[in-house]
Amino acid sequence: MSIRLGELVDRFGGQLIGSPDVDVTGIAPLSDAGSSQLSFLSNSKLCSQVSQTRAAALILSATDHAALGDLYLGICIIVDNPYVYFARVAQHFAALQAIPADKGVHPTAFVSPHAVIAPSASIGAHATVEAEAVIAENVVIGAGCFIGRGVNLDANTRVHPNVTIYDYCSIGQRVIIHSGAVIGADGFGFANERGYWIKIPQTGRVLIGDDVEIGANTSIDRGALADTIIEEGVKLDNQIQIGHNCHIGAHTAMAGCVGVAGSAKIGKHCTFGGAAMVLGHLNIVDNVHISSGSMVTRSILEPGQYTGFYPLAKNADWEKTASIVRNLNSMRDKIRQLEKTIKSLTEKSS
Amino acid sequence: MSIRLGELVDRFGGQLIGSPDVDVTGIAPLSDAGSSQLSFLSNSKLCSQVSQTRAAALILSATDHAALGDLYLGICIIVDNPYVYFARVAQHFAALQAIPADKGVHPTAFVSPHAVIAPSASIGAHATVEAEAVIAENVVIGAGCFIGRGVNLDANTRVHPNVTIYDYCSIGQRVIIHSGAVIGADGFGFANERGYWIKIPQTGRVLIGDDVEIGANTSIDRGALADTIIEEGVKLDNQIQIGHNCHIGAHTAMAGCVGVAGSAKIGKHCTFGGAAMVLGHLNIVDNVHISSGSMVTRSILEPGQYTGFYPLAKNADWEKTASIVRNLNSMRDKIRQLEKTIKSLTEKSS
Amino acid sequence: MSIRLGELVDRFGGQLIGSPDVDVTGIAPLSDAGSSQLSFLSNSKLCSQVSQTRAAALILSATDHAALGDLYLGICIIVDNPYVYFARVAQHFAALQAIPADKGVHPTAFVSPHAVIAPSASIGAHATVEAEAVIAENVVIGAGCFIGRGVNLDANTRVHPNVTIYDYCSIGQRVIIHSGAVIGADGFGFANERGYWIKIPQTGRVLIGDDVEIGANTSIDRGALADTIIEEGVKLDNQIQIGHNCHIGAHTAMAGCVGVAGSAKIGKHCTFGGAAMVLGHLNIVDNVHISSGSMVTRSILEPGQYTGFYPLAKNADWEKTASIVRNLNSMRDKIRQLEKTIKSLTEKSS
Repeated sequence: MSIRLGELVDRFGGQLIGSPDVDVTGIAPLSDAGSSQLSFLSNSKLCSQVSQTRAAALILSATDHAALGDLYLGICIIVDNPYVYFARVAQHFAALQAIPADKGVHPTAFVSPHAVIAPSASIGAHATVEAEAVIAENVVIGAGCFIGRGVNLDANTRVHPNVTIYDYCSIGQRVIIHSGAVIGADGFGFANERGYWIKIPQTGRVLIGDDVEIGANTSIDRGALADTIIEEGVKLDNQIQIGHNCHIGAHTAMAGCVGVAGSAKIGKHCTFGGAAMVLGHLNIVDNVHISSGSMVTRSILEPGQYTGFYPLAKNADWEKTASIVRNLNSMRDKIRQLEKTIKSLTEKSS
Repeated sequence: MSIRLGELVDRFGGQLIGSPDVDVTGIAPLSDAGSSQLSFLSNSKLCSQVSQTRAAALILSATDHAALGDLYLGICIIVDNPYVYFARVAQHFAALQAIPADKGVHPTAFVSPHAVIAPSASIGAHATVEAEAVIAENVVIGAGCFIGRGVNLDANTRVHPNVTIYDYCSIGQRVIIHSGAVIGADGFGFANERGYWIKIPQTGRVLIGDDVEIGANTSIDRGALADTIIEEGVKLDNQIQIGHNCHIGAHTAMAGCVGVAGSAKIGKHCTFGGAAMVLGHLNIVDNVHISSGSMVTRSILEPGQYTGFYPLAKNADWEKTASIVRNLNSMRDKIRQLEKTIKSLTEKSS
Repeated sequence: MSIRLGELVDRFGGQLIGSPDVDVTGIAPLSDAGSSQLSFLSNSKLCSQVSQTRAAALILSATDHAALGDLYLGICIIVDNPYVYFARVAQHFAALQAIPADKGVHPTAFVSPHAVIAPSASIGAHATVEAEAVIAENVVIGAGCFIGRGVNLDANTRVHPNVTIYDYCSIGQRVIIHSGAVIGADGFGFANERGYWIKIPQTGRVLIGDDVEIGANTSIDRGALADTIIEEGVKLDNQIQIGHNCHIGAHTAMAGCVGVAGSAKIGKHCTFGGAAMVLGHLNIVDNVHISSGSMVTRSILEPGQYTGFYPLAKNADWEKTASIVRNLNSMRDKIRQLEKTIKSLTEKSS
């Protein structure tokens, strides 16, 4: 399973410096690449590793290529964004090496006679597909998954083993859902009557757009009356909690352990660091970036980077505060010194 | 599937102003309700939406009804707590529209011959029920669930797909457990011997009272020697961790991502905001309310609202502190100013 | 199922004071132990409970035995570390009482003809084992588990129901994995191209050493290019997230809800309190202890206890800071007082 460099450049672009007839078998970091592998330089700080790499060829930017000069005289592919190029080449190798899932319904799966399964779809061992579900072309449903009544899974979507999708949720094309994820469980809605909780039926759905990825053990609750919506291209890491009626804008990414309370509306192209939390009913506009571990306690109406915890602040403000907090000790000492000096001044002047 | 307003009022109480013979097909928020749907006003701030609703009838309080006056002349149901009334009506519609689970054991399920299954119970596809388990009337066990040896599931309890209940745990009546939840895994108990961890067998159980709801991917560990206890009416959201030997009092509610370390004792009618954390071996009395993201680092012996993070404080105190933290910058500037003034005073007076 | 005290001491050591011919049926805390049970004193603060215990015999240290004097005249086993001794005796009772899993493949399981299963292994109901998986002697795989292609499970490892292990991961001997855990899902790796996320295939594995325990609903992602490594003896509680390419050193323990971002390198014999978070690409040396709820935002190159949240600090420093934060109010009042005094001094002196 090898590819000619010439074929890669034909497929993905870039300027090849060196022979197009060299074959490569995979892609690896500078320090690990073997002599039949391609490598990439996506961070100029790693320039010093280049001279020692054994890689057959190097993906890098024109700037880094110029900066390296005589330090690297091997084959190059000059591209605008080496990291993106690496991603595409790695996808290509992964696709070539992938073992395709068996098409059709595994003999141990249970599929309702009232479900509709495309002939090219794959339903894994011990999976359950309920009535009125519609499973499109090339969908792969892993072992032990539960696909509820009336669920729609659009083409080329992959559901890893032991995922649960509740009734009537709808999933777009090319979505990837990792094991343990739960899509469409009841939102947390109760009315309180003299100390007792009365359940509010959660009758909305979860609607997930194309090209979304959902991590392991992540939960996305169905809406109470309206729907929970995850727009196209959203990437959610593991162990994330999305409350009922949230709306997450396209191409927003959230790292592991993030929690979003109910009815939060989050814009497009936002990012959330790990373990960030968002309170309910807030509005966050497009292009907001929340640092890891921060808690968003109020709506954010301007793009930018935000950091902190009770109170949340603009990142730059927070860093100032944090440095003062670290030095509160000396601040208290200064006050004590001031008090002493003033006492002596007061005594003198009286 | 429609209901006469008269029938609703007969069933749930309230004072009907208008014709009892109007049929309604469901319930929806003021802004979404169609002309055959009921709506409700549970928040006086939404009064302005009332004049534009197309709803067939409105559930509201006597106070709001009086306040609206001529702004709303349609059919009303006057009740004490419109939100609770909405919850009950919504439950009623949901029950009417629900598709009942098939009674009996699915042909793909595995049930030990030494388990006891009530005739009206439903055991889903690929579920496993071990020996000595007792499954009471009208219990619904979803696809792919594991019900361990000697587990007791009391009447009318619903276990959604892919839930795991370890051996000898006991679950009350009308409990709802969402997908991915794990009840009764081993608590985290080890003795440390010169740097190596020696496992302490976890031989207690998890005992869950009536009317509890447990969210998706929530974990409740079994006790080490004694039992972990969740009293009746407790509501746990998704992604919650309850350590071994915890005792959670009746009608306490916890939002998503809360973590409670082992042996914490929490009172009745408490609430925990999302991502709140409770350290182990603490005691929290009844009617304590913990704000989102707060960490409880010591026992709480007085009812009230608590907020904060290292140190935890009464909410009002915390808010003062937070506002000072936000302004630490100006506090530091003031100290510098004071130092300068004093320096010049000292020079003068010397 | 009872054991002679003499047999226990022969097996586990310790100095028996009293008859070796007394039979005990189990082990329980001082306050709960019945007259046929053994108990233990691992915390000197509980000395006062000793006089009231009904236990047949007591495990305790020589120091506590001397301190008790005439307060306890019953049978004793004097040991160096009563808590560790308790753990071993409890393990012994648990092993005697355990109901062994049925050897062989359950008739409802699906095992690829290209998997290799040791004769003494147990494959539970509705489990799936893919091609090229190797399941060693005495491994127990619970109901509904998914064991991917080429996975290796070494001898005496126990995988509880509904666990998912992705392709090519490798698990050591005597490992315990609890329900809902997901091992080897894709790491969270994307390149950003003008606002769109391009997936980086995650082609590394997860390698787990001997004697590791992994809690319920914990996720450990596979590496991007290299592997994610969990060394021997590591103990992970529930709801933990371990990002791709992390390396966790031997005998490190993490309590519930901890999150570790990608490529963090953590030393041996570290401990992490509940909900602690570690940012990516950090290095933490051996013997570091992180308090609950702390966020590690920079590498830690010295052993010790660390606490805090933006900024992280040495525990002792943090405690000082926290006590000042608690009293910021009075600090502000002092500054105001100083300002007033100085104003009056300035007026006088001018």
